[in-house]
Amino acid sequence: MQSIHQEFSVSFSYDVHFTKTLFHPDNELLVDAVADPDEPMPKKMVAVVDEGLLDHHESLLDQIQAYTDAHDETLDLAASPIVVPGGEAAKNDPDLVDDIHEVIYETRLDRHAYVLAVGGGAVLDLAGYAAGTAHRGIRLIRVPTTVLSQNDSGVGVKNGINAFDTKNFLGTFDPPDAVLNDLSFLRTLDDRDWRAGISEAIKVGLLKDAAFFDYLCEHAAALAPPTRDLDAMSHVVHRCAALHLNHIATSGDPFEKGSSRPLDFGHWAAHKLEELTNYTLRHGEAVAIGIALDCAYSHLVGRLSAEELDQILDLTSALGFDLYVPELDQHLDEPDHPDCLFQGLDSFREHLGGELTIMLLDAIGQGIEVHSVDRDRYRKAVSILRDQQGARTDIARSQPLS
Amino acid sequence: MQSIHQEFSVSFSYDVHFTKTLFHPDNELLVDAVADPDEPMPKKMVAVVDEGLLDHHESLLDQIQAYTDAHDETLDLAASPIVVPGGEAAKNDPDLVDDIHEVIYETRLDRHAYVLAVGGGAVLDLAGYAAGTAHRGIRLIRVPTTVLSQNDSGVGVKNGINAFDTKNFLGTFDPPDAVLNDLSFLRTLDDRDWRAGISEAIKVGLLKDAAFFDYLCEHAAALAPPTRDLDAMSHVVHRCAALHLNHIATSGDPFEKGSSRPLDFGHWAAHKLEELTNYTLRHGEAVAIGIALDCAYSHLVGRLSAEELDQILDLTSALGFDLYVPELDQHLDEPDHPDCLFQGLDSFREHLGGELTIMLLDAIGQGIEVHSVDRDRYRKAVSILRDQQGARTDIARSQPLS
Repeated sequence: MQSIHQEFSVSFSYDVHFTKTLFHPDNELLVDAVADPDEPMPKKMVAVVDEGLLDHHESLLDQIQAYTDAHDETLDLAASPIVVPGGEAAKNDPDLVDDIHEVIYETRLDRHAYVLAVGGGAVLDLAGYAAGTAHRGIRLIRVPTTVLSQNDSGVGVKNGINAFDTKNFLGTFDPPDAVLNDLSFLRTLDDRDWRAGISEAIKVGLLKDAAFFDYLCEHAAALAPPTRDLDAMSHVVHRCAALHLNHIATSGDPFEKGSSRPLDFGHWAAHKLEELTNYTLRHGEAVAIGIALDCAYSHLVGRLSAEELDQILDLTSALGFDLYVPELDQHLDEPDHPDCLFQGLDSFREHLGGELTIMLLDAIGQGIEVHSVDRDRYRKAVSILRDQQGARTDIARSQPLS
Repeated sequence: MQSIHQEFSVSFSYDVHFTKTLFHPDNELLVDAVADPDEPMPKKMVAVVDEGLLDHHESLLDQIQAYTDAHDETLDLAASPIVVPGGEAAKNDPDLVDDIHEVIYETRLDRHAYVLAVGGGAVLDLAGYAAGTAHRGIRLIRVPTTVLSQNDSGVGVKNGINAFDTKNFLGTFDPPDAVLNDLSFLRTLDDRDWRAGISEAIKVGLLKDAAFFDYLCEHAAALAPPTRDLDAMSHVVHRCAALHLNHIATSGDPFEKGSSRPLDFGHWAAHKLEELTNYTLRHGEAVAIGIALDCAYSHLVGRLSAEELDQILDLTSALGFDLYVPELDQHLDEPDHPDCLFQGLDSFREHLGGELTIMLLDAIGQGIEVHSVDRDRYRKAVSILRDQQGARTDIARSQPLS
């Protein structure tokens, strides 16, 4: 009997907005994202909120309630907001997924209703996974509140939680219905979180946009703590988000089914370093080191010039990132040791599927994929970072305190 | 700051094959589905097998092992097959999802590796959900082994399990990489399962293809037990699968994000009847009653002619389906009672999202959507089925035993 060939396309579209004070009753952005003259209103909505926000935004839950009350012709907050731990803890507790599912069930949310996820990337990943698997996908509005989530993960198409000690072992590809980037949340980030998100901007600058990399170099002092210029940061977030969105839309393979890659420069080492440091290193801090490592390696294999490597390490340091942590070194001569950095290569290949693919740099603004690496040269690259970190620390120590 | 509009499409394609003795070493279909000159071989594969198959196919696990051994340049069976309960039990135990995830983790399956799901629709739904959520989606090959799964759910784009006493509360839209319909499995189905799958063929015939409906009428005796003609059934499975695939590809909304509907004629009542009978009624048996009910209602609201209703009820009876079960009646005057049939309308609307949409018939081959129903007329439709069931039972009793 004749085989039947099935073929179809599914279109996805969503808007990424930039605003301030999203939950002020006069801000119409969230209402506009939900209102639809062709659908029954008001829309039921369940909010998942990052506990870490409540320290600096004590009345956030009340604000969300007051906002939906003020717009009750469009929004029906169907339950009290679900408050979940921020950071990687959000992705390490499978009960949190069950908790969100239970609220979705109890409030009788349907597939045309909304989950509103407010928080850092980990909370958005958790809430997105719960929303994406209930009724085969409830609509999701993301409100990323960190630099990292506003310029990278929060605007993308993935969700996930950790399982079996493996980052993002569970998850789906599932684009949001809208992303509302509220820049006012960035003010209250601590210095480490403010800084950490800039590493993804360095990444896309290095891979895709040399002019943007130059912007980062020129504005390093303005961006870095203690200055923390919000206008400069807003530009960085917008450009970085745009480059990520463009990569997803134009890669030809947004759900990474084939061999196309996400923009994961420096990420094989970063994921391993997060694990090796028990997540005391933030994702963005680990990415900064991972990028520095792959840049040093790119130089050692004759791709990136010494001048460009210097420029990259200078920017990374100027922003206040470490270039080196001791976990880079440990067991480096024992590739099979579970705590060896090189185990990150295997995990990386496994998670992405297919053969190993590592992004390197031929020049600033010009990435290149390779499928094998020279471990001895990576050991040398680690030693470059250790030396550079030492040299820069010495310089800092020799300078008078300001 | 300017909003960014994101828009992209994702293409999906897969082949649905029809074969016999799929796991005979000379049958190249499974090898061909996996082999790819552009990817590293052999491919790791984990098999999930329906326990119910092993009664009639005692050596199935050995056959799968022998098959992959015989084709070890392409296939690497990475673990012993995972045997899971067949039928709805597969979807009611969340531990089974965890078990499959654990094997996927332990065998280090990556996103370009395969889960091979062998069984009835429930097992395919379970295995598909586990595969679709590990590493954001491992490739899935479905080997449906029942009429129902070969002509309907197994060729589609959904997976799912039950939670909170709600059918398919958890799941994703995630097309398979291939569907291999092995018709030889149909021979060993018991009579109820053989028959049950035909109800989905009645459904697509009524909605989409009057000529196919005529084919079913003409071949009712050949299809029904005890004759069980495999050639006639093969034609039914192929045509029904083709109509389902075509609906998915041409509906304009394969993942049902908007208001477009799956081919769910008769399903609002069917889902409720499955629940009310504690799943002693098979899905296909419940669908047969649900279709009969919505046809009777279509007649009562002046759409379907009396002659066409008779023809539909005749076919349903001739195939050996019941037209009525007592659960249709109970609490029918108490719409808010949890065991009232009408509760199925609410659940149906909620699961699909948006406003209530029920498919009715204007004529055989011509469906029509409506957004509200008259409960009194539905009560009358139930009484028609009760009377018809009685009349047909009386006729059967008055005939001499053959």
